[in-house]
Amino acid sequence: MKAICKTQPDVGLAVCEVPEPTIGEQEILIRVVRSSICGTDLHIYQWDAWAQSRLKPPVIVGHEFCGYVAAVGSEVSHVQVGDFVAAESHIVCGHCTPCRLGQAHVCLNTRILGVDVDGGFAPYVAIPAANACKTDPSLPPEVATVQEPLGNAVHAVTAADVRGATVLVTGCGAIGLFSIGVAKALGAARVFATEVRPYRAELARRMGADAVLNPTTDDVLGYIHRATDGLGVDVALEMSGHPASIDFITRAIRPGGEVSLLGLFAQQVSVDLNALIFKGVAIHAIIGRQLFHTWQVMQNLLGSGALDVRPAITHVLPWCEYERAFELMASGQSGKVVLTWED
Amino acid sequence: MKAICKTQPDVGLAVCEVPEPTIGEQEILIRVVRSSICGTDLHIYQWDAWAQSRLKPPVIVGHEFCGYVAAVGSEVSHVQVGDFVAAESHIVCGHCTPCRLGQAHVCLNTRILGVDVDGGFAPYVAIPAANACKTDPSLPPEVATVQEPLGNAVHAVTAADVRGATVLVTGCGAIGLFSIGVAKALGAARVFATEVRPYRAELARRMGADAVLNPTTDDVLGYIHRATDGLGVDVALEMSGHPASIDFITRAIRPGGEVSLLGLFAQQVSVDLNALIFKGVAIHAIIGRQLFHTWQVMQNLLGSGALDVRPAITHVLPWCEYERAFELMASGQSGKVVLTWED
Amino acid sequence: MKAICKTQPDVGLAVCEVPEPTIGEQEILIRVVRSSICGTDLHIYQWDAWAQSRLKPPVIVGHEFCGYVAAVGSEVSHVQVGDFVAAESHIVCGHCTPCRLGQAHVCLNTRILGVDVDGGFAPYVAIPAANACKTDPSLPPEVATVQEPLGNAVHAVTAADVRGATVLVTGCGAIGLFSIGVAKALGAARVFATEVRPYRAELARRMGADAVLNPTTDDVLGYIHRATDGLGVDVALEMSGHPASIDFITRAIRPGGEVSLLGLFAQQVSVDLNALIFKGVAIHAIIGRQLFHTWQVMQNLLGSGALDVRPAITHVLPWCEYERAFELMASGQSGKVVLTWED
Amino acid sequence: MKAICKTQPDVGLAVCEVPEPTIGEQEILIRVVRSSICGTDLHIYQWDAWAQSRLKPPVIVGHEFCGYVAAVGSEVSHVQVGDFVAAESHIVCGHCTPCRLGQAHVCLNTRILGVDVDGGFAPYVAIPAANACKTDPSLPPEVATVQEPLGNAVHAVTAADVRGATVLVTGCGAIGLFSIGVAKALGAARVFATEVRPYRAELARRMGADAVLNPTTDDVLGYIHRATDGLGVDVALEMSGHPASIDFITRAIRPGGEVSLLGLFAQQVSVDLNALIFKGVAIHAIIGRQLFHTWQVMQNLLGSGALDVRPAITHVLPWCEYERAFELMASGQSGKVVLTWED
Repeated sequence: MKAICKTQPDVGLAVCEVPEPTIGEQEILIRVVRSSICGTDLHIYQWDAWAQSRLKPPVIVGHEFCGYVAAVGSEVSHVQVGDFVAAESHIVCGHCTPCRLGQAHVCLNTRILGVDVDGGFAPYVAIPAANACKTDPSLPPEVATVQEPLGNAVHAVTAADVRGATVLVTGCGAIGLFSIGVAKALGAARVFATEVRPYRAELARRMGADAVLNPTTDDVLGYIHRATDGLGVDVALEMSGHPASIDFITRAIRPGGEVSLLGLFAQQVSVDLNALIFKGVAIHAIIGRQLFHTWQVMQNLLGSGALDVRPAITHVLPWCEYERAFELMASGQSGKVVLTWED
Repeated sequence: MKAICKTQPDVGLAVCEVPEPTIGEQEILIRVVRSSICGTDLHIYQWDAWAQSRLKPPVIVGHEFCGYVAAVGSEVSHVQVGDFVAAESHIVCGHCTPCRLGQAHVCLNTRILGVDVDGGFAPYVAIPAANACKTDPSLPPEVATVQEPLGNAVHAVTAADVRGATVLVTGCGAIGLFSIGVAKALGAARVFATEVRPYRAELARRMGADAVLNPTTDDVLGYIHRATDGLGVDVALEMSGHPASIDFITRAIRPGGEVSLLGLFAQQVSVDLNALIFKGVAIHAIIGRQLFHTWQVMQNLLGSGALDVRPAITHVLPWCEYERAFELMASGQSGKVVLTWED
Repeated sequence: MKAICKTQPDVGLAVCEVPEPTIGEQEILIRVVRSSICGTDLHIYQWDAWAQSRLKPPVIVGHEFCGYVAAVGSEVSHVQVGDFVAAESHIVCGHCTPCRLGQAHVCLNTRILGVDVDGGFAPYVAIPAANACKTDPSLPPEVATVQEPLGNAVHAVTAADVRGATVLVTGCGAIGLFSIGVAKALGAARVFATEVRPYRAELARRMGADAVLNPTTDDVLGYIHRATDGLGVDVALEMSGHPASIDFITRAIRPGGEVSLLGLFAQQVSVDLNALIFKGVAIHAIIGRQLFHTWQVMQNLLGSGALDVRPAITHVLPWCEYERAFELMASGQSGKVVLTWED
Repeated sequence: MKAICKTQPDVGLAVCEVPEPTIGEQEILIRVVRSSICGTDLHIYQWDAWAQSRLKPPVIVGHEFCGYVAAVGSEVSHVQVGDFVAAESHIVCGHCTPCRLGQAHVCLNTRILGVDVDGGFAPYVAIPAANACKTDPSLPPEVATVQEPLGNAVHAVTAADVRGATVLVTGCGAIGLFSIGVAKALGAARVFATEVRPYRAELARRMGADAVLNPTTDDVLGYIHRATDGLGVDVALEMSGHPASIDFITRAIRPGGEVSLLGLFAQQVSVDLNALIFKGVAIHAIIGRQLFHTWQVMQNLLGSGALDVRPAITHVLPWCEYERAFELMASGQSGKVVLTWED
């Protein structure tokens, strides 16, 4: 079969002819119908320092995907051939201390599909049956494939109490956009978002943001001050990885508020810890998805129609146009970019 | 002024001429514009055993009301004349152990407006300033007055985790109806309600219930079994006070689910505790409103439009038609019944 | 090998010659050094209605045990031959909704060692590697074997907030006794226990109870009333399964308090739900152990010396004296009864 | 009466003759028997930038104190003349959003005794009755006076889950020392502390630390790595305000761990946010005490003997030796320093 691979320790990806994967007793084979591109995939493409330290080419990339179960291992009972599934990308060990404590999202032995083992930018992929998340086949496949990154947004939002809250989202990449919808679905009274790119600001509005502000041109703090009677926002969701966000959130959060940090930063950030202490703020550093609590909440929200993330999915391309897809991702003129695999 | 009073230890209420209330240093005077009738008011009218044991006539009844601040005591600073306010009906001491622990809703020294002290079925009422909940004057006054019972619903729903949950509401009186809307606003994926009266079943649908079933004619357990793949509901909200509800919920709740109990029962109830233990269920017995966390969440939900309770408010009558209002309440052919006071 | 079995659908147990168990790829073989007897084992012995409905003889009984790993399946990596382990008795599926939500203690497909599959009243037992809980070999083996029921106590206590709390334990069987020690280790300020048998009352005192009262002869409510300035206890742990406990706890619990229910009842219980509602009580129905959060907390408490349960372990007998051990269990003149298996 | 005052906007304090305070309707007069000195008092003495910006001399300083109620205002009912009380130092408004949400420790209108209004380095002090925390008169008065700063430690420890946890305390000033005892009382399995001064390291051992390490001479990370099998600590309590602590904690905390930040920093701190994100850490920024949940837990722990903070109280001097007391505080050769006021 043909798959999108990192073949060399260098910039770029390539289409390779590789054998169809075989499956172990506790694994399943998925016939992929949609994949989607994550910022991490862009790092792998660009072969940055993180990618150089982590990947061991050759590897089939791609950790966001959905498809139909084509085969199941002999010990697999709860997933059947023909089931529609999406993949949880973190393969966890189940026996380290975080796993035993119910914190498998920080498993000490995590292996990631498309990073540490072959992933889903391919017509077929083998994954542990435990990583298969059964999905209602009536869910549009381009939504099904983005459940993995949507789960990050659900994790970040559910870590805080957004019931009736005024929520600030800094950064409207795909996960920021998703967060806006999730916060609204869970009862946030108002969501303010910041974004520099007009294209993404418009997506934020379509995802339900009550106001979208440009931190380079708007007086965002002044706006929040006025909109909250000087109090500040109840919850802030950092989705940009921009170092200025931390100081901004420190000023914008109300005393007693909560912050979820999800965006990764290019370097260490100078933080006014005293200001956070005087405000008695709680901070949740977010990685991955709670296995599998996040998936349950997410799938129920999607299934009920309370959450609709389609406005954030801006491009669907055939897989063979992956170079253009990565360009779109890099351009910032996109939300989520999806690849199609079915014939 | 003329007010609706319990004048004698007997059935019924009467309109009395009483002096306008005076206020203490930490009190405010409210010019009432709307009041609403609670099931408790019906007990007081009917002079049942509870009412006989608790009330000391004469007393002006009514604990759900809203209006404009007409005067403030000398020590009051955060409420001004002209503010639009609703009343928290529980006057709490602030220094007993529950109060100190942040559980003022079970204050050991609670006095209730319209029960233990003069209430708001009157053109003017004096309340402690701490009990005034400032309300956006753009909120319809018939909604503003029902914030007190709506708060009970918010308390019952927020005690559980309804994010993405399948929720069962047993009993569609006013607070049951409110609960449907609150659960939906906070991200419940599906809400099933039970109600015997067609009139209220229709209101439940208008409040957003995905299904409303009649426990006397429908196979409700069978329905839930099918709708949840045999699992049961994640959350049950008992709003009927009907003894059969407990056994029903015990069967309908999923293992690991949560139950909020709010409806009061005419007598002790036989409970299959083992079944609840084997299912590992958590039960929240709900009284009043969390002071004032519940009010904050509620007012933010109302203000943002995420919650609209108007379908549950079925009748608005001039205060002088209070006898008819009580008949409507007793008939079951009503949701919330509101009285108007302004000229 | 010789093992203690339920061979016939009838009263009693028998020693049988059975083959040594073989293990699957994900299983381990344990050479048992200690087993302990649970109330459930007594039900199995006595062949009561529950046992008749659940067990399919022949089966090797026993679900509390510890020992050394004698062999591991080919897919097992985190447990080695020679490791000292105790067994979690619930074999869970990992893929049902409760399992996915982190509530594996109410797994829909639970199979129990010594009930549904062969257990550990035997010199060797095969269990899934996931059920092996590595134990510090310096822990006395008679303590290591009781970790499973101790986990129930840890689950019941940790479900509530006992920090600085006044705690009531109703019933001082083994798990009640354990609960006393756990509550103290986690910062309970005072623990009051009720128990009718003087033998167990003395054990309760040795486990750290500040007062042990006899509900048949003492004015327990009056005592609690005086000891708490009329407030009631913060937390109640129901460990007796005696129907009168529920009414007693309803009266003894303070407004805003928490109740954990663990003891099983012979029949349905009449409950004054209104009293619980007026008090705004939270109730946790407890089954099994949180997998594996409970084990982590428990093992850390045992390892640090913060928790010492040895006073509750009253008898250690050679396994061949199991008839006497069951008599001791039935007599009430015992705490935990342990059987030894090593040569 | 003679009191210790900041009389001029300059370094130092002075004894002044001031009138005995009068009380309002909702206030009480306390005859002080013990006061204690906080790091904040040292800042006031030294007249640093914070003190210059906040204090308006003349003011009687001192916010940690206990004594007997000498008089009560006409509206005060729950405190009587003769009661032994300690003072909560934060006077809160009760009506701002944080107060309404149960977060009065970050009240928007907080006034602090001995900072914004006259405090307790005086034989008599007037405080709002709501700030009086009744204390068992059998508690040693030098312990009663330190309840305010001890409450900060209780707040920091209870914000995390220390049940069975391995806890790291960075910095063994008075609140760090208290934290060690609190963590142990609430079930921490092991407490590791860091401290550069041998004098305070010895106090940490006496408070129950399992190991006390010197970050300038010991390989503390290596020690923690070995002691936790490479995992890291479950909970870290930052009590030093030393900027290097943040990077150290970032490395020492386990994936999924919790951090409480209480120590204030001289400037912004560079933080490796990515490391915290990859570890999925929760951070609690701590200020003041939860009103009054913290006091309830603390007083119950003290009353039961589960918590004994006397090893951290190193000096008791007559109030007139306050200059020496401040020297002791500044020297680092002290734990808590207490002043006596009774004749």
